[in-house]
This record gives sequence, structure tokens and C-alpha cells, in this order.
Amino acid sequence: MTTQETAQAPNITNGVNVDALFETIDAVKRNPAIADFQFRASNKWMGGDHNRTMISGFRGACEEQVHANGPFEIDNSEPPVLLGQGAAANPVEYVLHALAGCLTTSMVYHAAARGIDVESVSSEVEGDLDIKGFLGLDENVRKGFHVVRVRMQVKSEADAEMLKSLAQFSPVFDIVSKSLPVEVSIEKI
Amino acid sequence: MTTQETAQAPNITNGVNVDALFETIDAVKRNPAIADFQFRASNKWMGGDHNRTMISGFRGACEEQVHANGPFEIDNSEPPVLLGQGAAANPVEYVLHALAGCLTTSMVYHAAARGIDVESVSSEVEGDLDIKGFLGLDENVRKGFHVVRVRMQVKSEADAEMLKSLAQFSPVFDIVSKSLPVEVSIEKI
Repeated sequence: MTTQETAQAPNITNGVNVDALFETIDAVKRNPAIADFQFRASNKWMGGDHNRTMISGFRGACEEQVHANGPFEIDNSEPPVLLGQGAAANPVEYVLHALAGCLTTSMVYHAAARGIDVESVSSEVEGDLDIKGFLGLDENVRKGFHVVRVRMQVKSEADAEMLKSLAQFSPVFDIVSKSLPVEVSIEKI
Repeated sequence: MTTQETAQAPNITNGVNVDALFETIDAVKRNPAIADFQFRASNKWMGGDHNRTMISGFRGACEEQVHANGPFEIDNSEPPVLLGQGAAANPVEYVLHALAGCLTTSMVYHAAARGIDVESVSSEVEGDLDIKGFLGLDENVRKGFHVVRVRMQVKSEADAEMLKSLAQFSPVFDIVSKSLPVEVSIEKI
């Protein structure tokens, strides 16, 4: 490796290109319109419990963006006990998937920006839902989750409180936690 | 087909077994504990923007339930403009997927319970997100979506207002709409 190539090697922390991250932040400071994103999905009912989403692109950084590896095709189904075929996860399970993943990505990105190495992250999420709300049997029971708990196991030099504060930059955490209690606990391993 | 088989044929509307739906409602009325569900997901960071969720089972109808076709494996990634590899949809896109699918399933299930035929449903969802919130550049900007719009195209005998009220039994609509404005419009086709 030449000296020139060494100088150009990006700073990669937690698999995140930190130079590019700070370039993005600088670009947004110069032109805040870069920060306006619009994400999109289209969905088609396939019959009964089954429907399919296509995710092809979005708008961001002042441009229409196409998912080069897309369109991403994602199915919803319901298990037999909820009168479905059980062909795929159901919508509320996808919310848990989105929440766990977003907390993880937010933690490792924000850790990278602060020079904090993260070695591993795993998590379990559970959401309690009383289907009397969905069934219309009790107006006092909400239709969605009434509480969600997230347990994260993290291997990192940072302490649990710091890791939790970084995870909570998560957009999906913002969406869900402003609707219902989301209890996040971090265990250092 | 014998007379006996005719008598036993379940009432299927919109691909939903309406007899089983009313049996479920009756069972919940007799024993409300049947309605207590807990959905679950586990997630593992794969490096950088990439993490993977496994969804194996849940608790419902007073039993531990296993997804017979699972575990369902679902990946999160981020597009290159958000410093990822673009290998899969990102967490906020999964929220849009969950919302569109849940509105659709809720509409067709509740229509079936009322004897309303639905012939087709398709939808587009868009969520506006200002990444200054995620980046920590402005405390007054929320990290998640600030508005979501859903346009549904439905072929059915029922009118648009009725279809909208049925869709809004959706658990994911409940979760998201109690956090931020979700504008749902229904077009009869």
C-alpha cells in the first residue's frame, strides 16, 4: 500500500464509513433540503390474510433514489389461529422487526460517529396485544400493542446508559415510543 | 357434493373463514384470556447497516404457538445514500409495509364479518422523514416520520367511508396514528 492510498483509506468503524457520515452531516448543514426524505411502499391484496409489498425507491438527498437490489418484495400473512395461512410474518411482527433493527442500526451508527467500537449486538423484542381491540369487542382496549419490551445484549467498550442513548436516536423507536410504552434494556456482555 | 357436505362447508368471504371468525369472537367472549397475544422477534447485528430478524412463534389463544412455515428471516439494510449496502429494505420502510398490509387485512377481515365482498385492494404509502432528527442536528425535528399518507384503491360494493372505517380496526394503524398524522384515503375502483 502506498502512502497516498493510506491517506485515502476511509475511517470505517462498526462497518460504517465515518468519513462519509460526517460528509453527510456537513452537506445537510450547508443545504438542509438534503435531509428531507420520503420513503414509499406499494401493497397488493392477494386474498384472505395474504398481501404483498413492493419497495422500489424513495426520495432523499434531493434526488429520486432507486433500490439497486430491489424492488424488495415482502409478504404479510397471519397464522392459522388468526385465520390465516401462516405463509409469512404478520404486520405487527414486522413492527417488532423494524423496531429491533432500527435500534441496532442507530446504536452502531451513532457509536461509530463517536469513535466507540461495538463488537456485537443481539436483541429480543416482545409486544403485548389484546385482540379484543381489533375484534371490536371492547372500545377501551387499544387495537395495537399496549406495551413493547426490548432486551439488547451488546459487546462494547461503552457503558449501557450511553449505548441506550445512542440506540434511541432510532426513527422507529421515535414512532412507536410516542404511541405506547417501549421499555428498552441493555445488557453488556 | 352430498347434502351433508354442503351443510358443513364453511362460509368463506374475501378468503376469510367467517364461521371460524365468529367462533373466535364467541370463544373470546367466554374466556377473555384467549385475546391476550404476545408477538416476538429476535434480531442479530451482521455489521454496519445490516441486521437480521428471526420470527419463530408467539403466544396467543392461551398457548405457545410456533410458525409452522417459520422461522421467518427478515433483513434490514440501508441504501448507499444512508451509508449502507442496500441489501434489503430499511426499518422505516418496514413500518410502511406493516401499515399498508395491516390496513388491508383489517379491511377484508371486518368486511367479511359483515358479509361485504371485497374484490381487490391495492395501496401506496409514503412517509416523510427529516433526517436532521436522526442525525441529532435539530432537537425540534422528530426522528421518525412526521406524516404518513396512505392511498387505497378498493373494488367492493361498500362505500369508501365504510371501507375506511373497517381498515381502521388495524393494530398497526393504531400504533402509528397515535404517534403521528396518518392520512388514509380510499378510492373506489
